[in-house]
Amino acid sequence: MLCVHFCFIGICLVTNLSKRLVLAGDAWYGVAHGCTRKLGMKICGFLQKNNSLDEKSRMVGAFKESAKNQMCDNSERFMRAETDFSNLFARDLLPAKNGEEPTIQFLLEVVEILTNYVRKTFDRSTKVLDFHHPHQLLEGMEGFNLELSDQPESLEQILVDCRDTLKYGVRTGHPRFFNQLSSGLDIIGLAGEWLTSTANTNMFTYEIAPVFVLMEQLTLKKMREIIGWPNGDGDALFSPGGAISNMYSVMVARYKYFPEVKTKGMSAAPRLVLFTSEHSHYSIKKAGAVLGFGKENVILLKTDERGRVIPADLEAKIIDAKQKGYVPLFVNATAGTTVYGAFDPINDIADICEKYNLWLHVDGAWGGGLLMSRKHRHKLNGIERANSVTWNPHKMMGVPLQCSAILVREKGILQGCNSMCAGYLFQPDKQYDVTYDTGDKAIQCGRHVDIFKFWLMWKAKGTIGFEQHIDRCLELSEYLYNKIKNREGYEMVFEGQPQHTNVCFWYIPPSLRSMPHGDERREKLHRVAPKIKAMMMECGTTMVGYQPQGDKVNFFRMVVSNHAVTKSDIDFLINEIERLGHDL
Amino acid sequence: MLCVHFCFIGICLVTNLSKRLVLAGDAWYGVAHGCTRKLGMKICGFLQKNNSLDEKSRMVGAFKESAKNQMCDNSERFMRAETDFSNLFARDLLPAKNGEEPTIQFLLEVVEILTNYVRKTFDRSTKVLDFHHPHQLLEGMEGFNLELSDQPESLEQILVDCRDTLKYGVRTGHPRFFNQLSSGLDIIGLAGEWLTSTANTNMFTYEIAPVFVLMEQLTLKKMREIIGWPNGDGDALFSPGGAISNMYSVMVARYKYFPEVKTKGMSAAPRLVLFTSEHSHYSIKKAGAVLGFGKENVILLKTDERGRVIPADLEAKIIDAKQKGYVPLFVNATAGTTVYGAFDPINDIADICEKYNLWLHVDGAWGGGLLMSRKHRHKLNGIERANSVTWNPHKMMGVPLQCSAILVREKGILQGCNSMCAGYLFQPDKQYDVTYDTGDKAIQCGRHVDIFKFWLMWKAKGTIGFEQHIDRCLELSEYLYNKIKNREGYEMVFEGQPQHTNVCFWYIPPSLRSMPHGDERREKLHRVAPKIKAMMMECGTTMVGYQPQGDKVNFFRMVVSNHAVTKSDIDFLINEIERLGHDL
Repeated sequence: MLCVHFCFIGICLVTNLSKRLVLAGDAWYGVAHGCTRKLGMKICGFLQKNNSLDEKSRMVGAFKESAKNQMCDNSERFMRAETDFSNLFARDLLPAKNGEEPTIQFLLEVVEILTNYVRKTFDRSTKVLDFHHPHQLLEGMEGFNLELSDQPESLEQILVDCRDTLKYGVRTGHPRFFNQLSSGLDIIGLAGEWLTSTANTNMFTYEIAPVFVLMEQLTLKKMREIIGWPNGDGDALFSPGGAISNMYSVMVARYKYFPEVKTKGMSAAPRLVLFTSEHSHYSIKKAGAVLGFGKENVILLKTDERGRVIPADLEAKIIDAKQKGYVPLFVNATAGTTVYGAFDPINDIADICEKYNLWLHVDGAWGGGLLMSRKHRHKLNGIERANSVTWNPHKMMGVPLQCSAILVREKGILQGCNSMCAGYLFQPDKQYDVTYDTGDKAIQCGRHVDIFKFWLMWKAKGTIGFEQHIDRCLELSEYLYNKIKNREGYEMVFEGQPQHTNVCFWYIPPSLRSMPHGDERREKLHRVAPKIKAMMMECGTTMVGYQPQGDKVNFFRMVVSNHAVTKSDIDFLINEIERLGHDL
Repeated sequence: MLCVHFCFIGICLVTNLSKRLVLAGDAWYGVAHGCTRKLGMKICGFLQKNNSLDEKSRMVGAFKESAKNQMCDNSERFMRAETDFSNLFARDLLPAKNGEEPTIQFLLEVVEILTNYVRKTFDRSTKVLDFHHPHQLLEGMEGFNLELSDQPESLEQILVDCRDTLKYGVRTGHPRFFNQLSSGLDIIGLAGEWLTSTANTNMFTYEIAPVFVLMEQLTLKKMREIIGWPNGDGDALFSPGGAISNMYSVMVARYKYFPEVKTKGMSAAPRLVLFTSEHSHYSIKKAGAVLGFGKENVILLKTDERGRVIPADLEAKIIDAKQKGYVPLFVNATAGTTVYGAFDPINDIADICEKYNLWLHVDGAWGGGLLMSRKHRHKLNGIERANSVTWNPHKMMGVPLQCSAILVREKGILQGCNSMCAGYLFQPDKQYDVTYDTGDKAIQCGRHVDIFKFWLMWKAKGTIGFEQHIDRCLELSEYLYNKIKNREGYEMVFEGQPQHTNVCFWYIPPSLRSMPHGDERREKLHRVAPKIKAMMMECGTTMVGYQPQGDKVNFFRMVVSNHAVTKSDIDFLINEIERLGHDL
């Protein structure tokens, strides 16, 4: 409060200078520095509160002028200011007159909230979540009210809302969050998403998303090359998730064999049937329902003990369907099932598809990432024989949600299947090559930019970076498997080393260990995982998924896709299960 | 270079202090300040490059310690540091050991790029775009190469890539970008998206998105209330865009009348037909193709001169279809057509739907926002009689892409239509009320968090803020209409004041003004708008859409949804059209 300083050191020696201003509280700090970030010239202004406003503005003005003179491009380094947001409202931000300063200050304040969240996400001393029941959050927590009102709230309240939204949420990037196939918080991907939001555009035409459209095209071609299609030829799109990607595959298959359905509807086709494993993702059945096949015409295939399709069962069911007068159309092979992480034998299935002239789709939403690993990609051998592939970089490759690709071997078929040629959007008389407009290939009109974060991550990590990530996650799951396979109190759901990072197991509390196998034990065991999970969530220490499967009672499904996970986190999970489950 | 300062003023008088550190270049600035943002205590450290490292770290250490002692919560104010990113890689960021500092610095550097972009977006002296043809961008611009490689790039290159991505993109928030129904850059919405990306979660279960799930529920209820459904009852979801929302409406209608289609497929239903206007969005026809109705079973209705459905034509076509043995199922009324901005007469259509027992959907993707305006909502009179409504806040309400709602009057029908009861995701034995899990209502599995930005904007603007926005955009379009309706060189595509912000017009260059009407003039006029548009894009000064419609040759469609637009921008557009088109 007592000290008045004004220190100014700025000698413009270079032409390539950018300006840096940090406005903190009522004090100004300004730094003009070399654009190369290595020149050390700095300007520092420091003004105390008790300076008169006039003096302050004069001095600040002088600094600003000086800094301006040293500027050689029109980019500005941001200024940080102590700002009273309690009297500011959304209407004071850009495009409001004089809205620039409050806009920047507001965004920087938000960024501070976000960077603090990022820090804590990776901090094992913080909780994964601070669980509340719906009614608790709905009643309103201290200062956090979800209700919307007619009148605006101050920006101060908006910032509080941002903090509270994160506070009562779940840290999906926390090293001990194992609950979903998508986990982790990739910093480059995050930066990519921030940029994507700022660009706020739409993938439907080159006209308004030139860079993103080209990035999508190049990245999808690279993915097709990795799948193994000659020259990376074919077609593809990013879609809003694996379920929609799988739906595309069924649509395209139908269009390939029965193009008249597009115009005349399903009544123009015979009774078509689709095949997929009983362990496959429910989106195949959902696609059957949505697209008008009917879910009973999605025929489920038997799997072996480890959840892999039995090819002989596929062939038997094809023959059976044909005998009943149905027309087999489509087979889905899963590369990495949701629960067991099983890889269906693609080559064997491809042989059968070729024999009966069926469309082969590979749902690699979860397992597609293994294509990036020289060590593990053999698990998808035969994928190059598929007609279409779903591959979600937002799962095993750690890309932020959402990022799912549907890739198709035959060029032009997405366009043929989906085009409606809307004149207001896809004008043929544009000045550029309109084959770059992607909108008419999609079932969407507007389409979110999902590519940039992925492209940026690929640039930043390189192909080898993804490979290392995949290999590391699989090593960690091997570590878990080896740790518990013979440990007292654990039973594995299936024998042998898992193919993917999925490790499925029962934790048997001491009270059940000597109980004879039978219905009573089954019923009790069925309740163990939900109870442990509920306690985990109440404690907020970790999260892992559980589910029943077929005739198997509730078991834990552990997966690893987060690059922050270490062996100690795996150890922690096991200790936590035992701590919480010991007395059940 | 000559000045060594270390200034430290910190007296801890309050308990509620947060820490502020700004590390700039080789200098540290630190400010500990009151959390209330109004207490003026500050700490400033300034160290020049020529200090020895030892001395620097000692002093910095001392400062850090002191700041720590004054900290009363565990949040940290971010530090800004001059960082050499040329030797840093993605692998050096979190979760890497000591990754926190480079992570924060990298994110702050990205934020600087983004805030500069935000500033420029609102700056009329900058271009809307810097147009390049696909081949130019693909060949690689100076320092900007889209190709992906095996090896990682430095973070310095990643930052350059971020800058260049924005540089060669299109500023959809620029006050002179009028190209799409979605435009503008709302700062609160942007902050909301940044937070959403950081939270990186998924809407399918309450378990991992508790706050977002509740926000979605409350906001959708509010939207249903505004539509006018009693107590806001019903159901709804945010979907990945208006086309998918419209597709939901057709699916739900089919499920309502022919629930067996879900199981048995379209062969279980009679030949169903759908009705929509010839001016409606192509997604209705696309839904017909995708869902197995066939696009020829989507019957197009005639419109009046202003693009509104003629109800008598609907009734005639229903009767005609029934006579042919088809079963009418569904009628779409558009509230705000894409090109003309026309509002179909919902009440008249609803009467017919009631008479023939048909599902009434209102596609208010574009016009739904007018419900927020007491002045304009009468244009949607009768919407409360609809069975389902599409309403895209990402269009007229200025919410960042994507944000589209499908709202359904009958509760439970989305669940009935789409549920597959996947055990691994929707366990009935969770510890919370699982009716909050939304995933099984959707055709997606994972679903992006589209709600938060919208909820936050609503909080920040209030209902009245949206109303003001809508009213203002309509005033601006009225201004444009009045300006050009009698202006030399302009012809309106339809007579009378537009219902929405769409103003459709031909610009007639002097060379065509005296030409007699006929094929030659038509052909020449058809080429005018594309030529002007191409020149606009080359100049980068503004962007506006054009298209033909029915037998009408290419015309401009001007729309306003960006809150940054002023009358001067409208004037600019007209001047620019005349400047570029004068000599055609």
